[in-house]
Amino acid sequence: MCRWLAYAGSPVLMDDVLYKPAHSLIDQSLHSKLGVETTNGDGFGVGWYACASDEGDGEPAVVRETGPAWSDRNLREIARHVRSPLFFAHVRASTGTATQQSNCHPFRSGRWMWMHNGAITDFPRLRRELCLAVDPALFSSIEGSTDSEVMFYLAVTFGLDQDVPGAVARMAGFVERLGREHGVEYPLQMTVAVSDGRRVWAFRYSSRGQSRSLFYSSRPETVRMLHPNLALLRDLSDDTRLIVSEPLGDPPGVWNELPEGTFAMAPSSGSDYAPFRPASA
Amino acid sequence: MCRWLAYAGSPVLMDDVLYKPAHSLIDQSLHSKLGVETTNGDGFGVGWYACASDEGDGEPAVVRETGPAWSDRNLREIARHVRSPLFFAHVRASTGTATQQSNCHPFRSGRWMWMHNGAITDFPRLRRELCLAVDPALFSSIEGSTDSEVMFYLAVTFGLDQDVPGAVARMAGFVERLGREHGVEYPLQMTVAVSDGRRVWAFRYSSRGQSRSLFYSSRPETVRMLHPNLALLRDLSDDTRLIVSEPLGDPPGVWNELPEGTFAMAPSSGSDYAPFRPASA
Amino acid sequence: MCRWLAYAGSPVLMDDVLYKPAHSLIDQSLHSKLGVETTNGDGFGVGWYACASDEGDGEPAVVRETGPAWSDRNLREIARHVRSPLFFAHVRASTGTATQQSNCHPFRSGRWMWMHNGAITDFPRLRRELCLAVDPALFSSIEGSTDSEVMFYLAVTFGLDQDVPGAVARMAGFVERLGREHGVEYPLQMTVAVSDGRRVWAFRYSSRGQSRSLFYSSRPETVRMLHPNLALLRDLSDDTRLIVSEPLGDPPGVWNELPEGTFAMAPSSGSDYAPFRPASA
Amino acid sequence: MCRWLAYAGSPVLMDDVLYKPAHSLIDQSLHSKLGVETTNGDGFGVGWYACASDEGDGEPAVVRETGPAWSDRNLREIARHVRSPLFFAHVRASTGTATQQSNCHPFRSGRWMWMHNGAITDFPRLRRELCLAVDPALFSSIEGSTDSEVMFYLAVTFGLDQDVPGAVARMAGFVERLGREHGVEYPLQMTVAVSDGRRVWAFRYSSRGQSRSLFYSSRPETVRMLHPNLALLRDLSDDTRLIVSEPLGDPPGVWNELPEGTFAMAPSSGSDYAPFRPASA
Repeated sequence: MCRWLAYAGSPVLMDDVLYKPAHSLIDQSLHSKLGVETTNGDGFGVGWYACASDEGDGEPAVVRETGPAWSDRNLREIARHVRSPLFFAHVRASTGTATQQSNCHPFRSGRWMWMHNGAITDFPRLRRELCLAVDPALFSSIEGSTDSEVMFYLAVTFGLDQDVPGAVARMAGFVERLGREHGVEYPLQMTVAVSDGRRVWAFRYSSRGQSRSLFYSSRPETVRMLHPNLALLRDLSDDTRLIVSEPLGDPPGVWNELPEGTFAMAPSSGSDYAPFRPASA
Repeated sequence: MCRWLAYAGSPVLMDDVLYKPAHSLIDQSLHSKLGVETTNGDGFGVGWYACASDEGDGEPAVVRETGPAWSDRNLREIARHVRSPLFFAHVRASTGTATQQSNCHPFRSGRWMWMHNGAITDFPRLRRELCLAVDPALFSSIEGSTDSEVMFYLAVTFGLDQDVPGAVARMAGFVERLGREHGVEYPLQMTVAVSDGRRVWAFRYSSRGQSRSLFYSSRPETVRMLHPNLALLRDLSDDTRLIVSEPLGDPPGVWNELPEGTFAMAPSSGSDYAPFRPASA
Repeated sequence: MCRWLAYAGSPVLMDDVLYKPAHSLIDQSLHSKLGVETTNGDGFGVGWYACASDEGDGEPAVVRETGPAWSDRNLREIARHVRSPLFFAHVRASTGTATQQSNCHPFRSGRWMWMHNGAITDFPRLRRELCLAVDPALFSSIEGSTDSEVMFYLAVTFGLDQDVPGAVARMAGFVERLGREHGVEYPLQMTVAVSDGRRVWAFRYSSRGQSRSLFYSSRPETVRMLHPNLALLRDLSDDTRLIVSEPLGDPPGVWNELPEGTFAMAPSSGSDYAPFRPASA
Repeated sequence: MCRWLAYAGSPVLMDDVLYKPAHSLIDQSLHSKLGVETTNGDGFGVGWYACASDEGDGEPAVVRETGPAWSDRNLREIARHVRSPLFFAHVRASTGTATQQSNCHPFRSGRWMWMHNGAITDFPRLRRELCLAVDPALFSSIEGSTDSEVMFYLAVTFGLDQDVPGAVARMAGFVERLGREHGVEYPLQMTVAVSDGRRVWAFRYSSRGQSRSLFYSSRPETVRMLHPNLALLRDLSDDTRLIVSEPLGDPPGVWNELPEGTFAMAPSSGSDYAPFRPASA
């Protein structure tokens, strides 16, 4: 499995979120506490949108490498010099597929970015039929061999551009139906983040009702408790939010667990989360 | 495109064939003379079968890396310490797909090994239908995103285990038929080597009749002219052969061009080559 | 040897300078015309200073990799999303030392950045005494095994902080003296760029008077001729300059060769260049 | 710190020793039990001598990579296809120096091979003087930035060719003297293995008397208890030995801890170990 982090709100230096907290994602790459594996050393990725909306074409930058995050100097350099209002970071623990750049998260398609922790049960057996359900125009965009990438292209196929929670629900529904047709009792296990550059949607769901952990930060003043000396975090907007596989540190009141079968958004839209359940495709 | 080399016959230290000739495959990785590109620096691979047939399970060892061959120290170490009666080496120049280990040659399936120089025209457009024609039981073995790997699994699907030239002919026939259905005039361009550990088959074919170069060595005494001081090459059996994308050096009489639309075998079975043409799958 | 590029002036997206010109540095990594080697595929690096002088600590970001630049996806991503008023880029062709990150340029020490094309003749023989001349407090900062890195720390030792041309002259003078003491007729061959984040100094010098090529762009309106459609290049300040190992394209009037034994600065300070000669340390 | 393994005795397939035991070195790269760090993912290396003494020049093959051992496919391929009577394997957990090939163990100089777990305290501060004590003729062979490599070249400088325990003792003595001159109370912490292709010497020593763990296998029949089904291990010679940072599995009677301040040899020369103490250089 893996660990990930999504940030949305006031622009910050990625370093402040990615490296500085006591139990940062980089620390989690070596010492995960809540993950299936302690070590998440099978590659990593970071993807960020530009600060100025008028810059570039709206596509995020995506930098991925096959080595461990903890020792990667280029990641550290980038984090220390790039400021972004919305970014993803992911450290990977392979569930069997190759350690190669095209299997590292986040994945990108146009302005969309996607990352995942979890698995489709018996993926090698289901892979062909899952790939066949991807829009033929998108098929050749699949570069790697992971379930996560196929889930992304299925969600795009099922209308991510029009309705994010709906498309993810139809993807999940399709995976579950197909898995069950092949005798898989619990086909899907996922915590997924997806973004179009303006908003992050984060989903926590599993067929068995025992999803991997997912947390969201409460109001930014509590985030500041993570490292009170950081001037950069002083002026975060009220709707700034972090969504993480596991808390970046211990202060009470900062982190809320996202319940089973829900999704959240960041920047916050007021309500904290909404129910999520698979739909027929 | 790429450059490759296949050796079969008396066991030799790979170094003697791979590094020592004046215009070795390693030299070709930087300074190819006959290739589409001068530089073949998008990864490399070497695959070898064991000397003793009773050792291991008959599967070849396959070592592949994404960096250039010319500077790879591990390749040099392996070549200097591994002796083999049958091995492949390949230096890659990507035609667009990612530089990742799973896109590097040779590919392996059980005891079979495959490498390729060439391309399926408009592969991104044809990829989905080509993948669908692969035996569903093999689909999940596809790890990379190249045409070469799909060609391999199509050949396995079409009976490589029973009839090598027939299976390759059916693969080529299928690619051509599918390409033409999609309006591609010249769908296939290939020089391919395949082995089961006992024999190498090497094919030169293109839809347009303008295939990339392919050469085979004549009798081993001429091979020795490549580097007459190498004691190790003194005792090669008569049927020892090298098949190469381009000659490893200039001595006259060593290299014969394999004609358009033919295939050769090594170790030599007496006749030099036989005609090859695509067949219906 | 290597190829490099230094930019200083109005902030631009690195992509516009690094990838878009017809004979960009990325193209030069595969197809150098004036370099000692056609291929510069033994690693690369890019280093940039932030746009806002109030951001960070004034240290440049330095991203280096051991693979070839031409196929590196992360470099492309960074170039497309990072805007900078002063940056270096370098593609490496090793003259023998290992292909490892710590041998890739640019090198960094505090706010200083350094890159080099050339060689110290007989470096393995002189390496120990060169290293001994480095300020002992800096010795442990040497991470790699190249002459270029040692030249950098010698220049820092000899006062880069106080007087850039003077420190580089003393470094060159020391190398020449030491070389000649060891019987080396022409000890030094260099084109070097160094920056503190506000200015770039670029030196062209060799003991033999036959230095590798180095060019600087004339006024920015001529730079725009490189790719007239790029809106981003429309508003460059008058003092914006590019200094490059070889021209990024062919328009007449854009590029001026820096003469043997001179150095130039960017952004332009009015005069184009000044004489450079080694000094005693 | 790191974990390592040295094997000497009857030729075996490296896979049988490196991958197959329950708590193999590969498993230790992810789940070390006795190491300072659980994860040893900052590169790895394997070095082996040829089976036939008449093959090659007596130099070992050394393959090193910067990624984690646990996911490296090439290492697995090599281990499955290479048989050797004497080999080293090492998984690295960096104590601060860069993750680069030239910092990975084993190191090689001529027919000698060296690997290390431990550290020289305050190495950055002592590095220059340690390097200066290396034979000037060897200085330029230092490619990386680790203490381990400098320790190796110091041992070569101090007579490894003539007297292995003596040269290692003088290296340790020199490190301790230099460290103490600089106010370091406990300058050295080491478990070291060194080989010339015929024999392995393994040392356990630390200035504080609290060395990292080191174990040697007792007679080969007990080694077989590690995986009784392996036919390949049935015919090991009586003097075959494994020396390891931590046991490869739990059977009682297989592993003996090497006491503090001793060294052992493999193949076994009869006595199990001898005392080791630093000597003046």
